[in-house]
Amino acid sequence: MSSSTAGLVIPCKAAVAWEAGKPLVIEIVEVAPPQAMEVRIKVKYTSLCHTDLYFWEAKGQTPLFPRIFGHEASGIVESVGEGVRDLKEGDHVLPVFTGECGECGHCKSEESNMCDLLRINTDRGVMLSDGKSRFSINGTPISHFLGTSTFSEYTVVHAGCLAKINPLAPLDKVCILSCGISTGLGATLNVAKPKKGSTVAVFGLGAVGLAAAEGARIAGASRIIGIDLNPSRFEEARKFGINEFVNPKDHDRPVQEVIAEITHGGVDRSIECTGNINAMISAFECVHDGWGVAVLVGVPNKDAVFMTKPINVLNERTLKGTFFGNYKPRTDLPSVVDMYMSKKLQLEKFITHQLPFSEINKAFEYMLKGEGLRCIINMEE
Amino acid sequence: MSSSTAGLVIPCKAAVAWEAGKPLVIEIVEVAPPQAMEVRIKVKYTSLCHTDLYFWEAKGQTPLFPRIFGHEASGIVESVGEGVRDLKEGDHVLPVFTGECGECGHCKSEESNMCDLLRINTDRGVMLSDGKSRFSINGTPISHFLGTSTFSEYTVVHAGCLAKINPLAPLDKVCILSCGISTGLGATLNVAKPKKGSTVAVFGLGAVGLAAAEGARIAGASRIIGIDLNPSRFEEARKFGINEFVNPKDHDRPVQEVIAEITHGGVDRSIECTGNINAMISAFECVHDGWGVAVLVGVPNKDAVFMTKPINVLNERTLKGTFFGNYKPRTDLPSVVDMYMSKKLQLEKFITHQLPFSEINKAFEYMLKGEGLRCIINMEE
Repeated sequence: MSSSTAGLVIPCKAAVAWEAGKPLVIEIVEVAPPQAMEVRIKVKYTSLCHTDLYFWEAKGQTPLFPRIFGHEASGIVESVGEGVRDLKEGDHVLPVFTGECGECGHCKSEESNMCDLLRINTDRGVMLSDGKSRFSINGTPISHFLGTSTFSEYTVVHAGCLAKINPLAPLDKVCILSCGISTGLGATLNVAKPKKGSTVAVFGLGAVGLAAAEGARIAGASRIIGIDLNPSRFEEARKFGINEFVNPKDHDRPVQEVIAEITHGGVDRSIECTGNINAMISAFECVHDGWGVAVLVGVPNKDAVFMTKPINVLNERTLKGTFFGNYKPRTDLPSVVDMYMSKKLQLEKFITHQLPFSEINKAFEYMLKGEGLRCIINMEE
Repeated sequence: MSSSTAGLVIPCKAAVAWEAGKPLVIEIVEVAPPQAMEVRIKVKYTSLCHTDLYFWEAKGQTPLFPRIFGHEASGIVESVGEGVRDLKEGDHVLPVFTGECGECGHCKSEESNMCDLLRINTDRGVMLSDGKSRFSINGTPISHFLGTSTFSEYTVVHAGCLAKINPLAPLDKVCILSCGISTGLGATLNVAKPKKGSTVAVFGLGAVGLAAAEGARIAGASRIIGIDLNPSRFEEARKFGINEFVNPKDHDRPVQEVIAEITHGGVDRSIECTGNINAMISAFECVHDGWGVAVLVGVPNKDAVFMTKPINVLNERTLKGTFFGNYKPRTDLPSVVDMYMSKKLQLEKFITHQLPFSEINKAFEYMLKGEGLRCIINMEE
């Protein structure tokens, strides 16, 4: 059996960013069939993540327009290109901004998920196999974004960037697992690994930080301390197991000293989700000597330098970094979906807004205002 | 049964440092009996470590003289003070510069060895219980060093700083396990934990660095790369399993780039044993992204600042520090002695010189010249 559209160009609606910072425009784009090792999917739901916003604003990098953004999504396979063995029409999938070729040193390592072939590339606007785009409008190519471009009814993705998931999972919920929520959750569960009863500090109470807190709740942490400059986030954060708050603005000394004081020497684990370099340093220095582990998640600006006195390291502290929560997209994401299906992981509380695809620009407005956590965009409305 | 000297002051020979940087003088000192939770031991062998030299030179800290140095040693219990249950006359022991009270949060943690009560204290020249010295000459107290002061035929040590070891172990060999060798060995075996077949870089090829290399050899590393500014160390290092050398002076770019190139992206593990801040940064940046672990051992000067771009952390590298190789002195050192007894660990190759106690100043000369690794001083000669 093969879909009636397999092998054909599909015209469909996509939200095209023509210029940096300007509202997206819903256009009819032509989506070419998948080439070797590629898969074309029908996107069902997508959400918006700060990375979309950052590259749409194009303040910190070479602009690449016109482009179709979007990388947090769920969908169903429409057709597969040559050589694709693990996926077929009708499979439910999460597209991921980074991939898993299965063959490189990283994919073969038990510890790494930083695939050599399919690692995130924010500058590439084309497919790997032929250096071309699969999107066009009247023959003009439209750039891809992160190899996913989910702000389109149909998109083409490398097979190594698609996680095949339980077909019973509600796609309007699990779509948020394809980026931010897994990033925070995995930072705690896979990297910080707090023991039951331990004390965990989370820096930054946006979606990623709250997902890190959700990981600490699942791991059985007894104290979860949230740190944020914005006190309006504290109330919502209680839903995520955060039971103490520290606002660095309320203190006239470094926040790591405040945390050390209220925890008798430091927390067992900390997870940094802001990308602010001072928060990174505080997150490291606030862990207890002897056994503390700090995990960096947030991405700082490129001129930032992490600085600390070596004695802070020598006193048996550990500093680790993580990328996408150390999850290997294809191998590990299905089990995260199952964690939601078994009610161990709660996703509903991250979903604060819903919009039809036609109103996608509102999702950018919510994010610019810092309103809510995740906005689910229904591609069929 | 109790020793004939138990409860009495013992007059014996000790090498006293009267002034910073001046030769030690063998004097008759009076050694008071051990108080509560203390043990008096007959020192059999001692060796010299850089920490003795550093505090004897007193260039970087408040001088404390007269003082009896020495902390790497082996001995036999002469008598025990009130409340000491785990040790008795005749037990073979290694005194350690840091201790294990067994009761604090660090001692109860599986990961830490940084005992709250008995953690290293370089400034204290007296015993914990009463703030007094057990050494005197004609009534003038002589300061202790690191709670061990092993440059004396008899010394008094807190019971929590004595590891009871296999009485069959040759004390003239295992004495070097009470500081530097365990520090390097444990940094690799307990903290870096290289897998069989992995690639390990060791920065600094002194005794600690070579002990780290010995750990890598025991763990089955296939490539052990030694980094040192002094090429004369390279030949001897071969005995310790080091099979490749990099001298930073031979290259006009950072050594981490050289190492990344010869290892296709970086080593699996690195261990920094120099205390030089640039070497610390290189040791971190030379590990492979995705899974590399760098372990800092060497202690830098107090103004040094560790600096790196956050992306080096975010790309899934781990930075850890260790103190005394993460060994808990009483719990873990006996098994390190057994590792030597079963011929898994080779100690002989670290012992390059031997001297009678009467010539202890020669050991300082060897170390000042950087000659050899460990000099064993026989306290009975």
